[in-house]
Amino acid sequence: MVKSIYMDNQAGAPVEPRVFEAMKPHFLDIWGNPSSTHSYGQQSREAVEKSRETVARFIGAERSNEVVFTSGGTESNNLALIGFAQRNKDKGNHILVSSIEHISILNICKYLTKLGFAVTYLPVDKTGLVDPQSVREELTDKTILVSVMVANGEIGTIEPIREIGEIVKEKNVAFHTDAVAAVGKIPFDVKTEKIDMASLSSNDMYGPKGVGAVYIKSGTRISPITLGGGQERGLRSGSENVPGIVGMAKAAEIASKEMQSLSARLQGMREQLRRGILDSVPRAYLNGHPAQRLPDNLNVRFSYIEGESLVLSLDMEGISVSSGSACSSKTLEPSHVLLALGLSHEEAHGSLLFSLGRENTDEDVNRVLEVVPGIVQRLRKMSPLTPKDLVL
Amino acid sequence: MVKSIYMDNQAGAPVEPRVFEAMKPHFLDIWGNPSSTHSYGQQSREAVEKSRETVARFIGAERSNEVVFTSGGTESNNLALIGFAQRNKDKGNHILVSSIEHISILNICKYLTKLGFAVTYLPVDKTGLVDPQSVREELTDKTILVSVMVANGEIGTIEPIREIGEIVKEKNVAFHTDAVAAVGKIPFDVKTEKIDMASLSSNDMYGPKGVGAVYIKSGTRISPITLGGGQERGLRSGSENVPGIVGMAKAAEIASKEMQSLSARLQGMREQLRRGILDSVPRAYLNGHPAQRLPDNLNVRFSYIEGESLVLSLDMEGISVSSGSACSSKTLEPSHVLLALGLSHEEAHGSLLFSLGRENTDEDVNRVLEVVPGIVQRLRKMSPLTPKDLVL
Repeated sequence: MVKSIYMDNQAGAPVEPRVFEAMKPHFLDIWGNPSSTHSYGQQSREAVEKSRETVARFIGAERSNEVVFTSGGTESNNLALIGFAQRNKDKGNHILVSSIEHISILNICKYLTKLGFAVTYLPVDKTGLVDPQSVREELTDKTILVSVMVANGEIGTIEPIREIGEIVKEKNVAFHTDAVAAVGKIPFDVKTEKIDMASLSSNDMYGPKGVGAVYIKSGTRISPITLGGGQERGLRSGSENVPGIVGMAKAAEIASKEMQSLSARLQGMREQLRRGILDSVPRAYLNGHPAQRLPDNLNVRFSYIEGESLVLSLDMEGISVSSGSACSSKTLEPSHVLLALGLSHEEAHGSLLFSLGRENTDEDVNRVLEVVPGIVQRLRKMSPLTPKDLVL
Repeated sequence: MVKSIYMDNQAGAPVEPRVFEAMKPHFLDIWGNPSSTHSYGQQSREAVEKSRETVARFIGAERSNEVVFTSGGTESNNLALIGFAQRNKDKGNHILVSSIEHISILNICKYLTKLGFAVTYLPVDKTGLVDPQSVREELTDKTILVSVMVANGEIGTIEPIREIGEIVKEKNVAFHTDAVAAVGKIPFDVKTEKIDMASLSSNDMYGPKGVGAVYIKSGTRISPITLGGGQERGLRSGSENVPGIVGMAKAAEIASKEMQSLSARLQGMREQLRRGILDSVPRAYLNGHPAQRLPDNLNVRFSYIEGESLVLSLDMEGISVSSGSACSSKTLEPSHVLLALGLSHEEAHGSLLFSLGRENTDEDVNRVLEVVPGIVQRLRKMSPLTPKDLVL
């Protein structure tokens, strides 16, 4: 039996064993509701508030109550964008987002358009970068919110959010950033980056699935999108997912100590994988920015073949990778991110995403490098699009 | 050290050890995203779909895809009510709910009122029962939705939802029920009860916190309230909380086999507690229905004293109980449920909720019965409201 190799951490990641151990007592021993006044409930309340402080510190928030826990990155994006837009519509109806935002941001924008908001989608260059000047040019008197992600989880490109934040704040407009793909991989600090709201997800930093958070800077006016008992300062009702919150905080604590060394290790493996593939496979090209990219991310397009066939062929070798965002991989539509880079449908379809994780080893990289060129060659032989000289 | 006794399961419950074991591999070993096409992701997909079937079977749903997983009971209520109201506003703007619904339903109704919906709050009798005839009388041509809970978690009263469902369906109006407090404690079947939508929570049946579900009968039109990657048939976007979903299903599986015996055991202890308290403490009265009530629930009001003082005094004896719903216990307002029964503010404030759980024993009941009369007596002595003859 061949060891299975998982390089799809962007879609789903294991829970770090220390995170699991931190969560365990909150399933089995300390199960009170944080809103209960007895000491049993107060133990849960303390765990939640300690977790909030840890997450706040991790992202450089000034106050722990600026962190609102949610059920994940998607809900965080919904609360930040819909909650902000609804609450501030008296100030204007214009929203600026990049065209390579996560599908949740784009679908939220579609929804907001139906409610009377106008959305401008900022283009990106062929490496996936948003030009800060384009933000300046698109800001109008009606603009209330700009949302540009810290980094794109699919192509790895890290956006110039500090420059964007400065331009946005000059105009007194609110700035939201989807930090889901970046947090735990590259340094992120809400104060340095001049951010009003940021979305985080736990699983993307080896915490449990089903939990996330939104940073909401003090003074930012926002409406809740889930109504109920008024938990999370009234912004996110529902009894708190105590084990999930504790797990997310433990993941943040581990990341704050180990991110630098982990990212260096992942980047080393990623570079090995990049050179290995691009050197051994003809007509293979890097997607995303060559340098300004997440350390764990490699996205490569292979001419003449389909990423999905590559995913299945690699899967048969026990290697798990992705042809794009897991959030859209069940549809057959090409990735909106790759199309925004200016790639054709064919090029977008021929792309493969490797997202490395803490469990990967150099051996994994070597095995992938052994397997990929042969699979690409075999699939190209079967493809009517492949020029004859390439497969002889 | 005195053994601590927890009788606040309505607010927060332990995860059943078998549930924890079922979840464990989904944190540590099978962490793929269900939307990923590789076999690693497909293992997670299978776990989610098997869980959906288990939950569907447990509540008598015809098809597993009628079950949509959420982050808990509150989100389920939001999705059902807001999602249905928004999607069906062309048919009418009138909604009928009972006045003792969970705080989330009431706050959702407030929100819907702002959007132009008209909400009628059905009264209850002094035992907490909704009169099905009052539903018939309040239905209008504009009514699109009726929501009455299966049972109230605070006072334990089980509502006549079958009769209400029949009346509602005669008029071709949709019927939602908040089944959070009832499921896992009393039989519940969506087909028998003529239900279109039902909200469920995992922790209320010894599953993990942070996960729940909504049953949405095939053909029921509903809009999502969270936008994104289109998970859960497009009704609830966000990468699935696989361990949570697996845990909820395991809890449902255990409940389907063991609910009857567990409920019988809890009811036995509850009756012992009820008789013991009402016999030994003067001017103590049962809240809720004397017979038609959840097996685990005992809600008693004690004249002249405050429930919150009782909670704190019992807490000092290592006994965790509640003065009402955990969702509103941080505010000092009296419970809307108790006020709806016709109790005065003083009476409502003097109430204590015992919600028994699977870890409780006869010894726990005996210990509570030893302690409660003395505490009540002591607090009454300190209360200026107490008639002198009662504390001599």
